[in-house]
Amino acid sequence: MPDCRPIGVFDSGLGGLTVTAAIRKSLPHENIVYLGDTARVPYGNKSIENIRRFGLADAAFLADFDVKALVVACNTVSTIAMPMIKDAHPESLVLDVVEAGVAACADGVFRDVAVIGTKRTVGSGAYECALRGAIDGVRVRSIACPLFVPLAEEGVEDEKVLDAIMNYHLSELHHDPPEALLLGCTHYPLLADAIRRFLPDGVTIIDSAESCAVLLAGRLMENQALNSSGEFGGTRFHVTDKPADFAAVASRFLGAPIGAVNKVSLGE
Amino acid sequence: MPDCRPIGVFDSGLGGLTVTAAIRKSLPHENIVYLGDTARVPYGNKSIENIRRFGLADAAFLADFDVKALVVACNTVSTIAMPMIKDAHPESLVLDVVEAGVAACADGVFRDVAVIGTKRTVGSGAYECALRGAIDGVRVRSIACPLFVPLAEEGVEDEKVLDAIMNYHLSELHHDPPEALLLGCTHYPLLADAIRRFLPDGVTIIDSAESCAVLLAGRLMENQALNSSGEFGGTRFHVTDKPADFAAVASRFLGAPIGAVNKVSLGE
Repeated sequence: MPDCRPIGVFDSGLGGLTVTAAIRKSLPHENIVYLGDTARVPYGNKSIENIRRFGLADAAFLADFDVKALVVACNTVSTIAMPMIKDAHPESLVLDVVEAGVAACADGVFRDVAVIGTKRTVGSGAYECALRGAIDGVRVRSIACPLFVPLAEEGVEDEKVLDAIMNYHLSELHHDPPEALLLGCTHYPLLADAIRRFLPDGVTIIDSAESCAVLLAGRLMENQALNSSGEFGGTRFHVTDKPADFAAVASRFLGAPIGAVNKVSLGE
Repeated sequence: MPDCRPIGVFDSGLGGLTVTAAIRKSLPHENIVYLGDTARVPYGNKSIENIRRFGLADAAFLADFDVKALVVACNTVSTIAMPMIKDAHPESLVLDVVEAGVAACADGVFRDVAVIGTKRTVGSGAYECALRGAIDGVRVRSIACPLFVPLAEEGVEDEKVLDAIMNYHLSELHHDPPEALLLGCTHYPLLADAIRRFLPDGVTIIDSAESCAVLLAGRLMENQALNSSGEFGGTRFHVTDKPADFAAVASRFLGAPIGAVNKVSLGE
Protein backbone atom coordinates (compact mmCIF):
# COMPACT_ATOMS: atom_id res chain seq x y z
CA MET A 1 0.00 0.00 0.00
CA PRO A 2 1.43 3.38 -0.93
CA ASP A 3 1.75 5.68 2.07
CA CYS A 4 -0.11 8.76 0.84
CA ARG A 5 0.01 10.62 4.17
CA PRO A 6 1.53 14.07 3.71
CA ILE A 7 4.84 15.47 4.87
CA GLY A 8 4.40 18.46 7.18
CA VAL A 9 6.80 21.38 6.76
CA PHE A 10 6.76 24.55 8.84
CA ASP A 11 8.66 27.81 9.12
CA SER A 12 8.02 31.17 10.71
CA GLY A 13 7.33 32.60 7.26
CA LEU A 14 8.68 32.12 3.77
CA GLY A 15 12.15 30.63 4.21
CA GLY A 16 10.86 27.09 4.58
CA LEU A 17 9.62 27.26 1.01
CA THR A 18 13.17 26.60 -0.20
CA VAL A 19 12.98 23.33 1.79
CA THR A 20 9.57 22.62 0.28
CA ALA A 21 10.94 23.25 -3.22
CA ALA A 22 13.81 20.83 -2.58
CA ILE A 23 11.43 18.14 -1.26
CA ARG A 24 9.11 18.57 -4.24
CA LYS A 25 12.04 18.15 -6.58
CA SER A 26 13.54 15.05 -4.99
CA LEU A 27 10.29 13.41 -3.83
CA PRO A 28 7.76 14.47 -6.48
CA HIS A 29 5.21 11.81 -5.50
CA GLU A 30 4.84 13.04 -1.93
CA ASN A 31 2.04 15.26 -0.66
CA ILE A 32 3.15 18.24 1.43
CA VAL A 33 1.34 20.42 3.95
CA TYR A 34 3.13 23.71 4.59
CA LEU A 35 2.58 26.09 7.48
CA GLY A 36 4.10 29.59 7.58
CA ASP A 37 3.44 31.45 10.83
CA THR A 38 3.30 34.81 9.06
CA ALA A 39 1.38 36.44 11.94
CA ARG A 40 4.46 36.08 14.15
CA VAL A 41 7.35 36.15 11.68
CA PRO A 42 10.27 36.59 12.30
CA TYR A 43 10.98 34.21 15.17
CA GLY A 44 14.68 35.17 15.41
CA ASN A 45 14.07 38.27 17.53
CA LYS A 46 11.69 36.56 19.97
CA SER A 47 12.48 35.08 23.40
CA ILE A 48 13.38 31.40 23.84
CA GLU A 49 10.14 30.86 25.75
CA ASN A 50 8.06 32.29 22.90
CA ILE A 51 10.00 30.45 20.18
CA ARG A 52 9.35 27.14 21.97
CA ARG A 53 5.67 27.96 22.33
CA PHE A 54 5.40 28.92 18.65
CA GLY A 55 7.32 25.82 17.47
CA LEU A 56 5.10 23.50 19.53
CA ALA A 57 1.95 25.16 18.16
CA ASP A 58 3.23 24.88 14.57
CA ALA A 59 4.09 21.19 15.00
CA ALA A 60 0.72 20.46 16.65
CA PHE A 61 -1.11 22.13 13.75
CA LEU A 62 0.65 19.92 11.19
CA ALA A 63 0.31 16.75 13.30
CA ASP A 64 -3.47 17.08 12.91
CA PHE A 65 -3.03 16.31 9.20
CA ASP A 66 -1.79 12.81 10.10
CA VAL A 67 1.63 13.60 8.63
CA LYS A 68 4.14 10.79 8.17
CA ALA A 69 7.04 13.19 8.75
CA LEU A 70 7.41 16.58 10.34
CA VAL A 71 10.10 18.82 8.86
CA VAL A 72 11.17 21.82 10.93
CA ALA A 73 12.29 24.18 8.17
CA CYS A 74 12.95 27.10 10.52
CA ASN A 75 16.51 27.48 11.74
CA THR A 76 15.48 29.40 14.86
CA VAL A 77 13.14 26.62 15.99
CA SER A 78 15.68 23.98 14.93
CA THR A 79 18.37 25.47 17.16
CA ILE A 80 16.13 26.06 20.19
CA ALA A 81 13.06 23.87 20.39
CA MET A 82 13.77 20.42 18.93
CA PRO A 83 13.83 18.42 22.19
CA MET A 84 10.36 19.74 23.13
CA ILE A 85 8.93 19.11 19.68
CA LYS A 86 10.31 15.56 19.59
CA ASP A 87 8.94 14.92 23.11
CA ALA A 88 5.52 16.17 22.03
CA HIS A 89 5.50 13.85 18.97
CA PRO A 90 7.28 10.68 20.16
CA GLU A 91 5.76 8.45 17.48
CA SER A 92 6.61 10.74 14.57
CA LEU A 93 9.54 11.05 12.23
CA VAL A 94 10.72 14.59 13.06
CA LEU A 95 13.70 16.20 11.38
CA ASP A 96 15.10 19.67 11.09
CA VAL A 97 17.39 21.85 8.99
CA VAL A 98 20.29 21.87 11.46
CA GLU A 99 20.43 18.07 11.61
CA ALA A 100 20.19 17.93 7.81
CA GLY A 101 22.94 20.48 7.10
CA VAL A 102 25.29 18.84 9.58
CA ALA A 103 24.58 15.38 8.12
CA ALA A 104 25.49 16.69 4.66
CA CYS A 105 28.80 18.07 5.97
CA ALA A 106 29.55 14.77 7.72
CA ASP A 107 28.76 12.80 4.52
CA GLY A 108 31.23 14.97 2.62
CA VAL A 109 33.85 14.53 5.38
CA PHE A 110 34.63 18.25 5.31
CA ARG A 111 37.20 19.24 7.93
CA ASP A 112 36.95 23.01 7.50
CA VAL A 113 33.39 24.27 7.55
CA ALA A 114 32.01 27.81 7.73
CA VAL A 115 28.40 28.24 8.79
CA ILE A 116 26.45 31.38 7.92
CA GLY A 117 23.09 32.27 9.42
CA THR A 118 21.12 34.91 11.25
CA LYS A 119 22.51 36.42 14.45
CA ARG A 120 20.16 34.24 16.44
CA THR A 121 21.20 31.00 14.73
CA VAL A 122 24.91 31.78 14.96
CA GLY A 123 24.56 32.95 18.56
CA SER A 124 22.91 29.66 19.53
CA GLY A 125 26.09 27.72 18.68
CA ALA A 126 23.86 24.83 17.58
CA TYR A 127 25.56 24.21 14.23
CA GLU A 128 29.05 24.39 15.77
CA CYS A 129 28.16 21.91 18.51
CA ALA A 130 26.52 19.49 16.12
CA LEU A 131 29.38 19.72 13.57
CA ARG A 132 31.99 19.08 16.29
CA GLY A 133 29.97 16.07 17.42
CA ALA A 134 29.70 14.71 13.88
CA ILE A 135 33.15 15.29 12.34
CA ASP A 136 36.37 14.54 14.23
CA GLY A 137 38.75 17.48 14.37
CA VAL A 138 36.59 19.74 12.25
CA ARG A 139 37.43 23.46 12.11
CA VAL A 140 34.20 25.43 12.36
CA ARG A 141 33.64 29.14 11.90
CA SER A 142 30.25 30.81 12.21
CA ILE A 143 29.38 34.16 10.70
CA ALA A 144 26.15 36.06 11.24
CA CYS A 145 24.86 37.71 8.05
CA PRO A 146 21.92 39.88 9.18
CA LEU A 147 21.60 41.73 5.86
CA PHE A 148 21.10 38.53 3.84
CA VAL A 149 17.43 37.87 4.71
CA PRO A 150 16.18 41.30 3.56
CA LEU A 151 18.31 40.93 0.43
CA ALA A 152 16.70 37.55 -0.34
CA GLU A 153 13.17 38.67 0.49
CA GLU A 154 13.57 41.75 -1.71
CA GLY A 155 14.95 39.71 -4.57
CA VAL A 156 17.74 42.28 -5.07
CA GLU A 157 19.67 41.65 -8.29
CA ASP A 158 21.81 44.81 -8.31
CA GLU A 159 25.37 43.46 -8.37
CA LYS A 160 26.87 46.47 -6.58
CA VAL A 161 24.51 45.97 -3.65
CA LEU A 162 25.03 42.20 -3.64
CA ASP A 163 28.81 42.43 -3.86
CA ALA A 164 29.08 45.16 -1.20
CA ILE A 165 26.99 43.10 1.23
CA MET A 166 28.84 39.85 0.39
CA ASN A 167 32.09 41.67 1.14
CA TYR A 168 30.63 43.17 4.32
CA HIS A 169 29.64 39.79 5.76
CA LEU A 170 31.96 37.31 4.08
CA SER A 171 35.30 39.06 3.47
CA GLU A 172 36.98 36.72 5.98
CA LEU A 173 35.90 33.72 3.90
CA HIS A 174 37.11 35.33 0.70
CA HIS A 175 40.61 35.61 2.15
CA ASP A 176 40.63 32.32 4.05
CA PRO A 177 38.13 30.06 2.27
CA PRO A 178 36.68 27.00 4.03
CA GLU A 179 36.26 23.61 2.30
CA ALA A 180 32.50 23.88 2.73
CA LEU A 181 30.10 26.72 3.38
CA LEU A 182 26.90 25.64 5.12
CA LEU A 183 23.91 27.90 4.42
CA GLY A 184 22.35 27.90 7.88
CA CYS A 185 19.27 29.91 6.94
CA THR A 186 16.50 28.79 4.63
CA HIS A 187 16.50 32.17 2.85
CA TYR A 188 20.11 31.89 1.74
CA PRO A 189 19.68 29.45 -1.17
CA LEU A 190 18.18 32.46 -3.00
CA LEU A 191 21.58 34.16 -2.67
CA ALA A 192 23.64 31.11 -3.65
CA ASP A 193 24.74 32.59 -6.99
CA ALA A 194 25.96 35.83 -5.41
CA ILE A 195 27.75 33.90 -2.66
CA ARG A 196 29.38 31.60 -5.20
CA ARG A 197 30.53 34.58 -7.28
CA PHE A 198 32.10 36.21 -4.24
CA LEU A 199 33.94 33.18 -2.85
CA PRO A 200 37.05 31.62 -4.44
CA ASP A 201 36.46 28.55 -6.61
CA GLY A 202 36.55 25.23 -4.82
CA VAL A 203 34.31 26.05 -1.85
CA THR A 204 31.46 23.52 -1.67
CA ILE A 205 28.18 25.20 -0.83
CA ILE A 206 25.91 23.10 1.32
CA ASP A 207 22.32 24.16 1.12
CA SER A 208 20.37 22.97 4.16
CA ALA A 209 17.17 22.96 2.10
CA GLU A 210 18.57 20.37 -0.30
CA SER A 211 20.20 18.51 2.58
CA CYS A 212 16.83 18.36 4.30
CA ALA A 213 15.24 16.75 1.25
CA VAL A 214 18.05 14.19 1.07
CA LEU A 215 17.78 13.34 4.78
CA LEU A 216 14.00 13.08 4.54
CA ALA A 217 14.15 10.79 1.51
CA GLY A 218 16.58 8.49 3.32
CA ARG A 219 14.46 8.32 6.48
CA LEU A 220 11.23 7.67 4.59
CA MET A 221 12.96 4.89 2.66
CA GLU A 222 14.24 3.32 5.90
CA ASN A 223 10.71 3.49 7.31
CA GLN A 224 9.25 2.10 4.05
CA ALA A 225 7.02 5.15 4.06
CA LEU A 226 7.62 6.53 0.57
CA ASN A 227 4.54 7.17 -1.52
CA SER A 228 4.78 4.54 -4.23
CA SER A 229 1.45 5.43 -5.85
CA GLY A 230 3.11 6.77 -8.97
CA GLU A 231 0.97 9.88 -8.97
CA PHE A 232 2.46 13.31 -8.48
CA GLY A 233 1.86 14.78 -5.05
CA GLY A 234 0.35 18.16 -4.23
CA THR A 235 1.27 20.91 -1.79
CA ARG A 236 -1.20 22.71 0.48
CA PHE A 237 -0.22 26.04 1.97
CA HIS A 238 -1.37 27.50 5.28
CA VAL A 239 -0.38 30.82 6.80
CA THR A 240 -1.49 32.66 9.93
CA ASP A 241 -1.70 36.12 8.29
CA LYS A 242 -1.75 37.79 4.87
CA PRO A 243 -2.24 34.84 2.48
CA ALA A 244 -2.17 37.05 -0.64
CA ASP A 245 1.25 38.49 0.19
CA PHE A 246 2.55 35.02 0.92
CA ALA A 247 1.33 33.70 -2.42
CA ALA A 248 3.05 36.55 -4.28
CA VAL A 249 6.49 36.06 -2.73
CA ALA A 250 6.21 32.29 -2.44
CA SER A 251 6.23 31.73 -6.18
CA ARG A 252 9.75 33.22 -6.33
CA PHE A 253 10.96 31.04 -3.47
CA LEU A 254 9.40 27.90 -4.96
CA GLY A 255 10.40 28.70 -8.48
CA ALA A 256 6.81 27.91 -9.57
CA PRO A 257 3.34 29.42 -9.18
CA ILE A 258 1.48 28.19 -6.10
CA GLY A 259 -2.18 27.37 -5.61
CA ALA A 260 -4.58 28.57 -2.92
CA VAL A 261 -3.18 29.69 0.42
CA ASN A 262 -5.39 29.10 3.46
CA LYS A 263 -5.41 31.47 6.39
CA VAL A 264 -5.53 29.58 9.66
CA SER A 265 -5.43 30.43 13.34
CA LEU A 266 -3.17 28.61 15.77
CA GLY A 267 -5.67 29.32 18.50
CA GLU A 268 -3.90 32.14 20.35
CA MET B 1 0.26 73.57 38.97
CA PRO B 2 2.80 71.82 36.75
CA ASP B 3 1.27 68.99 34.72
CA CYS B 4 3.58 66.09 35.61
CA ARG B 5 1.52 63.44 33.82
CA PRO B 6 3.69 61.50 31.37
CA ILE B 7 3.68 61.47 27.58
CA GLY B 8 2.99 58.01 26.19
CA VAL B 9 4.95 56.91 23.11
CA PHE B 10 4.59 53.57 21.35
CA ASP B 11 6.05 51.72 18.41
CA SER B 12 6.14 48.11 17.26
CA GLY B 13 9.75 47.93 18.40
CA LEU B 14 12.76 50.21 18.41
CA GLY B 15 12.07 52.85 15.78
CA GLY B 16 9.95 54.98 18.10
CA LEU B 17 13.05 55.58 20.20
CA THR B 18 14.18 58.20 17.69
CA VAL B 19 10.91 60.02 18.45
CA THR B 20 11.53 59.58 22.17
CA ALA B 21 15.05 60.99 21.79
CA ALA B 22 13.69 64.04 19.97
CA ILE B 23 11.02 64.61 22.64
CA ARG B 24 13.58 64.30 25.44
CA LYS B 25 15.76 66.84 23.70
CA SER B 26 13.10 69.45 23.03
CA LEU B 27 10.98 68.86 26.15
CA PRO B 28 13.52 67.81 28.80
CA HIS B 29 11.15 68.41 31.72
CA GLU B 30 8.54 65.94 30.52
CA ASN B 31 8.15 62.38 31.77
CA ILE B 32 7.81 59.73 29.08
CA VAL B 33 6.39 56.20 29.13
CA TYR B 34 7.54 54.14 26.15
CA LEU B 35 6.04 50.90 24.89
CA GLY B 36 7.75 48.74 22.26
CA ASP B 37 5.67 45.73 21.15
CA THR B 38 8.77 43.61 20.59
CA ALA B 39 6.80 40.36 20.79
CA ARG B 40 5.01 41.26 17.56
CA VAL B 41 7.53 43.45 15.73
CA PRO B 42 7.50 44.22 12.81
CA TYR B 43 3.95 45.41 12.19
CA GLY B 44 4.59 46.25 8.52
CA ASN B 45 4.07 42.69 7.28
CA LYS B 46 0.88 42.07 9.27
CA SER B 47 -2.75 42.37 8.08
CA ILE B 48 -4.72 45.59 8.50
CA GLU B 49 -7.00 43.83 10.98
CA ASN B 50 -4.05 42.76 13.14
CA ILE B 51 -2.31 46.15 12.94
CA ARG B 52 -5.49 47.86 14.17
CA ARG B 53 -5.82 45.36 17.00
CA PHE B 54 -2.17 45.83 18.00
CA GLY B 55 -2.35 49.64 17.82
CA LEU B 56 -5.48 49.74 19.98
CA ALA B 57 -3.86 47.45 22.57
CA ASP B 58 -0.69 49.58 22.63
CA ALA B 59 -2.67 52.79 23.09
CA ALA B 60 -4.82 51.22 25.83
CA PHE B 61 -1.71 50.09 27.70
CA LEU B 62 -0.30 53.63 27.74
CA ALA B 63 -3.63 55.26 28.56
CA ASP B 64 -3.56 53.38 31.87
CA PHE B 65 -0.59 55.56 32.90
CA ASP B 66 -2.87 58.63 32.81
CA VAL B 67 -0.84 60.13 29.96
CA LYS B 68 -1.45 63.72 28.92
CA ALA B 69 -0.55 62.92 25.32
CA LEU B 70 -0.34 59.75 23.26
CA VAL B 71 2.28 59.73 20.51
CA VAL B 72 1.95 57.03 17.85
CA ALA B 73 5.58 56.67 16.82
CA CYS B 74 4.95 53.76 14.47
CA ASN B 75 4.45 54.66 10.83
CA THR B 76 2.48 51.48 10.10
CA VAL B 77 -0.06 52.23 12.83
CA SER B 78 -0.07 55.92 11.89
CA THR B 79 -1.05 55.13 8.30
CA ILE B 80 -3.71 52.52 9.13
CA ALA B 81 -5.22 52.80 12.59
CA MET B 82 -5.46 56.45 13.66
CA PRO B 83 -9.24 56.89 13.35
CA MET B 84 -9.82 53.88 15.65
CA ILE B 85 -7.24 55.00 18.19
CA LYS B 86 -8.65 58.54 18.29
CA ASP B 87 -12.18 57.13 18.66
CA ALA B 88 -11.02 54.95 21.55
CA HIS B 89 -9.43 57.93 23.34
CA PRO B 90 -11.72 60.87 22.57
CA GLU B 91 -10.56 62.94 25.57
CA SER B 92 -6.85 62.55 24.84
CA LEU B 93 -4.32 64.51 22.85
CA VAL B 94 -3.31 61.90 20.26
CA LEU B 95 -0.76 62.58 17.55
CA ASP B 96 1.26 60.53 15.14
CA VAL B 97 4.34 60.61 12.94
CA VAL B 98 2.49 61.02 9.64
CA GLU B 99 0.63 64.10 10.86
CA ALA B 100 3.89 65.50 12.29
CA GLY B 101 5.98 64.98 9.14
CA VAL B 102 3.28 66.47 6.94
CA ALA B 103 2.90 69.48 9.27
CA ALA B 104 6.65 70.12 9.02
CA CYS B 105 6.48 70.04 5.20
CA ALA B 106 3.51 72.42 5.23
CA ASP B 107 5.31 74.80 7.61
CA GLY B 108 8.27 74.89 5.21
CA VAL B 109 5.90 75.44 2.24
CA PHE B 110 7.76 72.85 0.19
CA ARG B 111 6.20 72.27 -3.21
CA ASP B 112 8.28 69.26 -4.25
CA VAL B 113 8.45 66.57 -1.60
CA ALA B 114 9.77 63.02 -1.74
CA VAL B 115 8.67 60.60 0.97
CA ILE B 116 10.67 57.49 1.78
CA GLY B 117 9.42 54.67 3.98
CA THR B 118 8.81 50.94 4.19
CA LYS B 119 6.84 49.19 1.44
CA ARG B 120 3.84 49.14 3.71
CA THR B 121 3.95 52.85 4.50
CA VAL B 122 4.50 53.87 0.88
CA GLY B 123 1.84 51.43 -0.31
CA SER B 124 -0.72 52.96 2.05
CA GLY B 125 -0.53 56.30 0.23
CA ALA B 126 -1.14 58.04 3.58
CA TYR B 127 1.71 60.56 3.31
CA GLU B 128 0.80 61.46 -0.27
CA CYS B 129 -2.85 62.03 0.61
CA ALA B 130 -2.02 64.12 3.65
CA LEU B 131 0.60 66.19 1.80
CA ARG B 132 -1.80 66.91 -1.08
CA GLY B 133 -4.38 67.98 1.48
CA ALA B 134 -1.92 70.26 3.28
CA ILE B 135 0.05 71.94 0.48
CA ASP B 136 -1.63 73.34 -2.63
CA GLY B 137 -0.14 72.02 -5.86
CA VAL B 138 2.55 69.99 -4.16
CA ARG B 139 4.48 67.44 -6.22
CA VAL B 140 4.83 64.26 -4.18
CA ARG B 141 6.89 61.19 -4.93
CA SER B 142 7.03 58.13 -2.63
CA ILE B 143 9.82 55.58 -2.66
CA ALA B 144 9.89 52.35 -0.67
CA CYS B 145 13.31 51.58 0.82
CA PRO B 146 13.00 48.08 2.27
CA LEU B 147 16.74 47.65 2.86
CA PHE B 148 17.00 50.74 5.09
CA VAL B 149 15.53 49.25 8.30
CA PRO B 150 17.98 46.34 8.50
CA LEU B 151 20.81 48.77 7.69
CA ALA B 152 19.76 51.04 10.58
CA GLU B 153 19.16 48.20 13.01
CA GLU B 154 22.57 46.70 12.22
CA GLY B 155 24.31 50.04 12.60
CA VAL B 156 26.22 49.43 9.34
CA GLU B 157 28.96 52.04 8.84
CA ASP B 158 30.66 50.46 5.80
CA GLU B 159 30.48 53.23 3.18
CA LYS B 160 30.47 50.83 0.22
CA VAL B 161 27.40 49.07 1.60
CA LEU B 162 25.69 52.34 2.52
CA ASP B 163 26.40 53.99 -0.83
CA ALA B 164 25.35 50.93 -2.85
CA ILE B 165 22.05 50.74 -0.98
CA MET B 166 21.48 54.51 -1.17
CA ASN B 167 21.99 54.28 -4.92
CA TYR B 168 19.73 51.23 -5.14
CA HIS B 169 16.80 52.97 -3.46
CA LEU B 170 17.39 56.66 -4.10
CA SER B 171 19.08 57.01 -7.50
CA GLU B 172 15.98 58.75 -8.87
CA LEU B 173 16.29 61.45 -6.19
CA HIS B 174 19.98 61.88 -6.89
CA HIS B 175 19.21 62.74 -10.51
CA ASP B 176 16.01 64.70 -9.88
CA PRO B 177 16.27 66.04 -6.32
CA PRO B 178 13.15 67.20 -4.45
CA GLU B 179 13.08 70.36 -2.31
CA ALA B 180 12.41 68.27 0.78
CA LEU B 181 12.90 64.61 1.65
CA LEU B 182 10.54 63.36 4.35
CA LEU B 183 11.87 60.41 6.35
CA GLY B 184 8.66 58.41 6.67
CA CYS B 185 10.09 55.72 8.92
CA THR B 186 11.31 56.19 12.47
CA HIS B 187 14.43 54.11 11.76
CA TYR B 188 15.67 56.42 9.03
CA PRO B 189 17.07 59.25 11.18
CA LEU B 190 19.90 56.80 11.94
CA LEU B 191 20.77 56.87 8.23
CA ALA B 192 20.43 60.65 7.83
CA ASP B 193 24.18 61.19 7.32
CA ALA B 194 24.41 58.57 4.58
CA ILE B 195 21.29 59.93 2.90
CA ARG B 196 22.62 63.50 3.05
CA ARG B 197 25.97 62.38 1.58
CA PHE B 198 24.20 60.67 -1.31
CA LEU B 199 21.77 63.45 -2.24
CA PRO B 200 22.77 66.73 -3.93
CA ASP B 201 23.22 69.75 -1.63
CA GLY B 202 20.12 71.80 -1.01
CA VAL B 203 17.65 69.02 -0.24
CA THR B 204 16.02 69.70 3.15
CA ILE B 205 15.72 66.50 5.16
CA ILE B 206 12.60 66.33 7.30
CA ASP B 207 12.88 63.90 10.12
CA SER B 208 9.45 62.82 11.36
CA ALA B 209 10.92 62.12 14.80
CA GLU B 210 11.97 65.76 15.25
CA SER B 211 8.76 66.95 13.62
CA CYS B 212 6.81 64.90 16.13
CA ALA B 213 8.59 66.57 19.05
CA VAL B 214 7.87 70.01 17.56
CA LEU B 215 4.18 69.21 17.00
CA LEU B 216 3.85 67.76 20.49
CA ALA B 217 5.47 70.80 22.12
CA GLY B 218 3.08 73.13 20.28
CA ARG B 219 0.00 71.11 21.24
CA LEU B 220 1.01 70.83 24.90
CA MET B 221 1.60 74.58 24.98
CA GLU B 222 -1.83 75.24 23.45
CA ASN B 223 -3.38 72.96 26.07
CA GLN B 224 -1.34 74.62 28.85
CA ALA B 225 -0.16 71.12 29.68
CA LEU B 226 3.61 71.57 29.69
CA ASN B 227 5.41 70.39 32.80
CA SER B 228 6.62 73.63 34.39
CA SER B 229 8.08 71.97 37.48
CA GLY B 230 11.65 72.80 36.46
CA GLU B 231 12.86 69.29 37.23
CA PHE B 232 14.18 67.03 34.48
CA GLY B 233 11.76 64.31 33.46
CA GLY B 234 12.45 60.58 33.30
CA THR B 235 11.66 57.88 30.74
CA ARG B 236 10.24 54.47 31.56
CA PHE B 237 10.58 51.67 29.03
CA HIS B 238 8.22 48.75 28.52
CA VAL B 239 8.51 45.96 25.97
CA THR B 240 6.50 42.81 25.32
CA ASP B 241 9.50 40.52 24.74
CA LYS B 242 13.29 40.42 25.19
CA PRO B 243 13.98 43.45 27.41
CA ALA B 244 17.75 42.83 27.49
CA ASP B 245 18.05 42.94 23.68
CA PHE B 246 15.95 46.07 23.59
CA ALA B 247 18.16 47.81 26.15
CA ALA B 248 21.28 46.98 24.16
CA VAL B 249 20.08 48.39 20.84
CA ALA B 250 18.05 51.22 22.38
CA SER B 251 21.09 53.06 23.69
CA ARG B 252 22.28 53.53 20.08
CA PHE B 253 18.88 54.77 18.96
CA LEU B 254 18.56 57.13 21.93
CA GLY B 255 22.16 58.26 21.82
CA ALA B 256 22.36 57.66 25.60
CA PRO B 257 22.34 54.69 27.98
CA ILE B 258 18.86 53.68 29.12
CA GLY B 259 17.65 52.49 32.52
CA ALA B 260 15.60 49.42 33.41
CA VAL B 261 13.30 47.94 30.77
CA ASN B 262 10.11 46.26 32.02
CA LYS B 263 8.65 43.26 30.28
CA VAL B 264 4.88 43.52 30.08
CA SER B 265 2.02 41.54 28.59
CA LEU B 266 -0.71 43.15 26.53
CA GLY B 267 -3.09 40.45 27.65
CA GLU B 268 -3.17 38.24 24.57
